[in-house]
Amino acid sequence: MTQELILNQRIVLASRPNGAPTPENFRLEREALPDLEDGQVQLRTLYLSLDPYMRGRMSDAPSYADPVEIDAVMEGGAVSVVEQSRNPNYKPGDLVVGQTGWQTHSISDGALLQAVPKGLPSESMAVGVLGMPGMTAYMGLMDIGKPKAGETLVVAAASGAVGSVVGQVAKLQGLRVVGVAGGADKCRYVVDELGFDACIDHKSENFAEELKQACGDGIDIYFELVGGKVFDAVLPLLNPRARIPLCGVIAQYNAQGVAEGENKLPLLMRTLLTKRALMQGFIVYEAYGHRRDEFITAMLPLVTDGKVKFREDVVDGLEQAPEAFIGLLEGRNFGKLVIKVSNA
Amino acid sequence: MTQELILNQRIVLASRPNGAPTPENFRLEREALPDLEDGQVQLRTLYLSLDPYMRGRMSDAPSYADPVEIDAVMEGGAVSVVEQSRNPNYKPGDLVVGQTGWQTHSISDGALLQAVPKGLPSESMAVGVLGMPGMTAYMGLMDIGKPKAGETLVVAAASGAVGSVVGQVAKLQGLRVVGVAGGADKCRYVVDELGFDACIDHKSENFAEELKQACGDGIDIYFELVGGKVFDAVLPLLNPRARIPLCGVIAQYNAQGVAEGENKLPLLMRTLLTKRALMQGFIVYEAYGHRRDEFITAMLPLVTDGKVKFREDVVDGLEQAPEAFIGLLEGRNFGKLVIKVSNA
Repeated sequence: MTQELILNQRIVLASRPNGAPTPENFRLEREALPDLEDGQVQLRTLYLSLDPYMRGRMSDAPSYADPVEIDAVMEGGAVSVVEQSRNPNYKPGDLVVGQTGWQTHSISDGALLQAVPKGLPSESMAVGVLGMPGMTAYMGLMDIGKPKAGETLVVAAASGAVGSVVGQVAKLQGLRVVGVAGGADKCRYVVDELGFDACIDHKSENFAEELKQACGDGIDIYFELVGGKVFDAVLPLLNPRARIPLCGVIAQYNAQGVAEGENKLPLLMRTLLTKRALMQGFIVYEAYGHRRDEFITAMLPLVTDGKVKFREDVVDGLEQAPEAFIGLLEGRNFGKLVIKVSNA
Repeated sequence: MTQELILNQRIVLASRPNGAPTPENFRLEREALPDLEDGQVQLRTLYLSLDPYMRGRMSDAPSYADPVEIDAVMEGGAVSVVEQSRNPNYKPGDLVVGQTGWQTHSISDGALLQAVPKGLPSESMAVGVLGMPGMTAYMGLMDIGKPKAGETLVVAAASGAVGSVVGQVAKLQGLRVVGVAGGADKCRYVVDELGFDACIDHKSENFAEELKQACGDGIDIYFELVGGKVFDAVLPLLNPRARIPLCGVIAQYNAQGVAEGENKLPLLMRTLLTKRALMQGFIVYEAYGHRRDEFITAMLPLVTDGKVKFREDVVDGLEQAPEAFIGLLEGRNFGKLVIKVSNA
């Protein structure tokens, strides 16, 4: 049997960024896919997820995961459809999620693939509210944040993939929820559509004061995604026994060398001590990978019943991924950023 | 019945320090004790405990506890003997521990007094290894540090009241224990007498490198008492899933205004994130006050069997307390600092 020649398009890491990534750090390549071996499946990418953590993979600084090698395909999770299968667990047409990278096609042995949950309004949600970002939000909030009705939670990037889920789930738990987002449009969406109690524009000149006004009873949970000036404004508002789940510091990802400004480490330590506060870094699949079923069971009905809303910023075409990713780190997206790579 | 006139000597806060406290911040006063009312006991102080947290009480910066008012007696825990009692729960001769302050005598309604545990080699231990410092060490290590055999723990102020207990209990749990202390004498004591695996002199020029050498498998638990350069040296050595119980930052207590040096907060947050590390501030009696019996039950046999050794630095006379306390913040004491106020 003759196999049709499949041309894979992929985006590789051309060079490591100094500071913010630029288009020159990426390169689009084409290659013929090799023939399938026994046990393998061939996948066609439908939706590629773009997430801030990918900035870390572009650097060779020590981190929790190995960096992407120069000339290797950029790492990323995606929803794909099985096109060919020599693996008994998969058949053509199956929808799967996997860490298949920035490319139009991929070949997998199936071991790390997961089925797309049934009943989703859109398959892309399997890399969004029901994928890594949603699970990061849910597990970090429930397991580290330990929300209690009546408490106040603050989350930044509140219109984004993680922040929007954190805030809505916290509202369902009976908390007062204050978001932080960039610009009036996003803030309006966070309050009017997502149902947060308030949302503060971090571009406002009086940001710290406005945040304080919105948190009259202090802050019990700060879900940390961004670092930087939001963290500075949150610190003096923390209540005794505050919890800070920490899953990202977007504001720092492009930073180079020595950080700017005065040394705030002593202030942080004094605050954690006098407030008896907890700060815990986590990487969702490492910490909670074994609890994915529990997460899906809890979150799927919330999404299908409309109790947790989820906005996507869909960009068409793999070749747009570098520019879209650069915009993501600058907060130019509005909602979960996904690249539509091909049609189902 | 005529009561004998008892003259109480007490040390009050004369003024708030700018930076390190000086003798002028304290004032020794004498006053006649008032007559006992129904329900009260009159105590004579035997041992006054001097601890770094008292520096916080001298400032009016926001903290977890109210500051000592100007002209009020300095706060402090002490072992006392009941001299007179109009409270049915106490009789003359009883030994008690309470937050009775820097004074030779005090009057209490008994509500917050605790009995000195029986069988102690010295009553002063009730404010040391079997008091607040020992309980801070034990609870912070066991409840937040969650030690596992084979892991590596680092603790600074290793010859002191808290650090010495942290390290010895961790050794009993099967950990590799590396102390940090100031000077060759203290380091020798920590290794030879307390049985730590190593102790690094923070006065050494190559301190960070020596600490790294002593922690070949990285650091799983850093019990934080001091902050400053020890913390800086520990940070890059933390292992994935490291735990940092935080009960003090002695190096910062005398700091004024903006902290010196580059901004290390971003580095800390990146480290907590990529190492999935936990940092938790705690105040022992607030967090674990209800577990005091459990602590005494666990620790008393370790002390009486000699499995946990405890060194005291006993200074004679209440009037010496200010100078001794100033020295404590500079690390001049060697072992738990207590003031012997009167003879049993």
